[in-house]
Amino acid sequence: MNIHVGPVAAPELQEAVVAAGGRLSPAAEASALVWYGAEPERFGELDHPGLEWVQLPAAGIEEWAAAGALRDGVTFTSAAGAYADTVAEHALGLMLTGARGLHVMARADRWERRSAAASLFGATVGILGAGGIGRSLIGLLRPFGVRVLAVNRSGRPVEGAERTWRADDAPGVREVLAAADFLVLAAPATAETSRLVDADALSRMKPGAWLVNVARGALVDTGALLAALDEGRIGGAALDVTDPEPLPDGHPLFRHPRAFVSPHSANPKSLLLPALARRVEENVRRHLAGEPLLGVVDPAAGY
Amino acid sequence: MNIHVGPVAAPELQEAVVAAGGRLSPAAEASALVWYGAEPERFGELDHPGLEWVQLPAAGIEEWAAAGALRDGVTFTSAAGAYADTVAEHALGLMLTGARGLHVMARADRWERRSAAASLFGATVGILGAGGIGRSLIGLLRPFGVRVLAVNRSGRPVEGAERTWRADDAPGVREVLAAADFLVLAAPATAETSRLVDADALSRMKPGAWLVNVARGALVDTGALLAALDEGRIGGAALDVTDPEPLPDGHPLFRHPRAFVSPHSANPKSLLLPALARRVEENVRRHLAGEPLLGVVDPAAGY
Repeated sequence: MNIHVGPVAAPELQEAVVAAGGRLSPAAEASALVWYGAEPERFGELDHPGLEWVQLPAAGIEEWAAAGALRDGVTFTSAAGAYADTVAEHALGLMLTGARGLHVMARADRWERRSAAASLFGATVGILGAGGIGRSLIGLLRPFGVRVLAVNRSGRPVEGAERTWRADDAPGVREVLAAADFLVLAAPATAETSRLVDADALSRMKPGAWLVNVARGALVDTGALLAALDEGRIGGAALDVTDPEPLPDGHPLFRHPRAFVSPHSANPKSLLLPALARRVEENVRRHLAGEPLLGVVDPAAGY
Repeated sequence: MNIHVGPVAAPELQEAVVAAGGRLSPAAEASALVWYGAEPERFGELDHPGLEWVQLPAAGIEEWAAAGALRDGVTFTSAAGAYADTVAEHALGLMLTGARGLHVMARADRWERRSAAASLFGATVGILGAGGIGRSLIGLLRPFGVRVLAVNRSGRPVEGAERTWRADDAPGVREVLAAADFLVLAAPATAETSRLVDADALSRMKPGAWLVNVARGALVDTGALLAALDEGRIGGAALDVTDPEPLPDGHPLFRHPRAFVSPHSANPKSLLLPALARRVEENVRRHLAGEPLLGVVDPAAGY
C-alpha cells in the first residue's frame, strides 16, 4: 500500500508507516495520506482521485470541516484518543494549579505565603464530555479518592464515575455544575457544545469551583467567564484553549489572579509526535489487515 | 486528662481534644499541651513542671531543637506524617509545573505556544528521604507508570519503589541522581542532609531533570543551584522551601525561567488544620488508652 506523509515529511511518522508494513510514496501515487504540518486549506495540494484514506493529526476536526476539506469518497480518521493520556496529564496540572494557586505564586517576585488552598483529595470532579481524555483523567485521579460525575453524549456509564448523565439531560448537567469542585471540559466542539459554559452555567457552579478547559475554546463564553472571575463568583479558570484563540496580547485572562492560561499546550509537539506515530502505525496496520480504523470521522456529527 | 491548646486556642484543635476524651484546661493545670500558633521561643510561657507531653504542630522540629525547647522530662510529638498526603499533592503539582512549563506560562501576557514538554508517564522519579510523603507521592504517581528509586535512612525497601538505597550509600545515591528525571527531596533537615544537593550532586543530575524540594531549604546549596539553572545544566527546580527562607524580595529564583517557588505552601493553613486536628484526636486517644503516640521526637536524631 502506497502511503504519503505530508505536506511536512515527519521522519517519526514515515518510520511508523514503514514499521506497520506500508510503503512510502509520492502523494500522487498514494492511496493513503498521513497529513502533517499544514493547515487544512492546503489539502487540495495533495488530494487526488486515487486517495482513499486520510489520517489527520489532530483529535478535533472542526477546522477540517470548516475548510470544506472532508470530501466524499475519502475516509478521514482523526487522532481522537491518541493524545488522551497527554491531555489528561495536562488537565491534572491545571487542576493542581488552581487548587494550590500555583499560577499566582509563579508570578510573584517576593515571598508571600498563602494560607488558603484546595485539595483534590475527596473533591468532586465533573467531566463534561467524558471520552478518552476523561477516562485517562479518572485513572490519574483515582489515588485522590475523588468523586467523579460524568456527562457524555450517550449517557453510557463511564467507568470510575459515580454517575453518568446524557449531554442532553439538562437537569442532570445542572446537577454536575452545582456539585463539582472542579469542572473539566473535554467535549468536542460541535453545535451542541458551543458556549456550553455560559453565564447561566457559571451562575450554577459552586462558589470556589475551578473550571478547567482542555477541549476547545468555543465551549466557553469568554465574556461571561471574565465577569464571573472578576466578581469572584467561582474559584477560577485554568484554560488550555480559549475563544478567541490565540488570545490577543495583554488579554485580561492572562495574569488574572483567578485565571491561568496555557496556550493550547496540553499536547505539545514533543509529546504529540510519538503519540501520533503510535496511532499512525496502528491504523496503517489495521488498514493493511482490513480491520476497522481508529478515529473514523463522521462529518455529520462533527467528530 | 487536662489538656491545653495554645498559645493560640484554635477551635478545631480544642474540638479534637474533646472528641478524643480529653478535658480542656488552663495551661498551668494541664499535663499535656497542644502547641499552636507561636514560635518555639515562647514555649517557656506555657511550660511548667507538671507538663508530660507536648504535641507540636509541624512535621519538622529543627526550630524547636535550635530554640533549646525540647527539654528533658517531657515527651514531644511532632506532626510527622500527618501532612504526607497534603505535601505529596503539592509535590505532584510542582512536578507537573516543571514537566509542562506551567510557571513560564503563568507569567506570560501573550500567546506563546511551547513545543517542548516532558511527561510523568514512564518517567524515573528519585525520592531522597522516602518516608510518609514519599509513600503518598508514590501512590499518586502510580497511574503514570513511573519508575521510583528511593533513598531512606534504613535502606528498608519502600513499597512501590524499584529499589531503595540507604542514605549513607554514596554510590547508590549517585545512581539515583544520575537516573532521575525528577528528583524529589522529602528528607528531614539534619546534619546529614544539610546541602545534600550541592554543586557535585547537581553535576550528576540528568541534563533535563527537575529538582523538587518539599522538605527543607537547607538540603540544597542555593548558590550552586542558581549556577546550574543559569547555565541550563538541569531542566529546572521547583522549590517549596528555600535557603535562606524567606527568600529576599526580588531574589533571582523568583521568576527564573527554570525555577518555580511556592513560598512554603505545600501545607497551607486551610489544609493543615484539619489534618493536625485528626492527628491531635488520634494522639489524645492513644495517650488516654496508654498506647504509643505517633511522631515521638528523638532529640538526638533531630526528628
